Amino acid sequence: MISEVKDMNEILEQALLYDFYGELLTDHQKEVYEQFVLEDLSLGEIAREEGISRQGVHDLVKRCSQTLKGYEEKLHLVEKFVSVREKVKQIDELLDGYEKENAEELVADIRKISDEIIEEL
Amino acid sequence: MISEVKDMNEILEQALLYDFYGELLTDHQKEVYEQFVLEDLSLGEIAREEGISRQGVHDLVKRCSQTLKGYEEKLHLVEKFVSVREKVKQIDELLDGYEKENAEELVADIRKISDEIIEEL
Repeated sequence: MISEVKDMNEILEQALLYDFYGELLTDHQKEVYEQFVLEDLSLGEIAREEGISRQGVHDLVKRCSQTLKGYEEKLHLVEKFVSVREKVKQIDELLDGYEKENAEELVADIRKISDEIIEEL
Repeated sequence: MISEVKDMNEILEQALLYDFYGELLTDHQKEVYEQFVLEDLSLGEIAREEGISRQGVHDLVKRCSQTLKGYEEKLHLVEKFVSVREKVKQIDELLDGYEKENAEELVADIRKISDEIIEEL
């Protein structure tokens, strides 16, 4: 259910889904969905812009969200990528904390994460 | 054009595309495509198994290949993943070559690759 009050996590999730699967939407869907999710316009603003009803925008955005979520349910690519991104950030943080005396430990820790990433891919 | 003589690179590419986008095919398409690409059965064998003509199998496999390639042309997710996998392997190789005296260099090299992965994601 899409309401005018946008939840931040929902918006981030929608943006990520759009980033991965957006190219599978039609040009018209992309245009409207981008205005709602990425440019943060209200349903009323988009309705005026597109010359369709507020309800029409609402339905289109909802349908796009469902389509994108449908792709994710089948392919899980966002989930995979979020997990890999998290692990690469961990490697970065380990490198930030590098000190001469703990180099062996660092190498072991990075290898562990790197192996986890390979398994995930 | 699918011929009976399968090219190894083509097969690997098809398997990778199937791994990423296969869930977007129908159950029937998946069944036939798996037999051809993953189980390496011939068109004739699949035709007998499925009770359809050899030409029918040929056309179905060809259509599946085009569908999967179409997804990749739009989403480029296989390309991205292959590149990330390559970089993580580089990190692994650097870790393999770890020696106390070159730890600083190792850390710098890994950070460079890790940053490249983050940019890619």
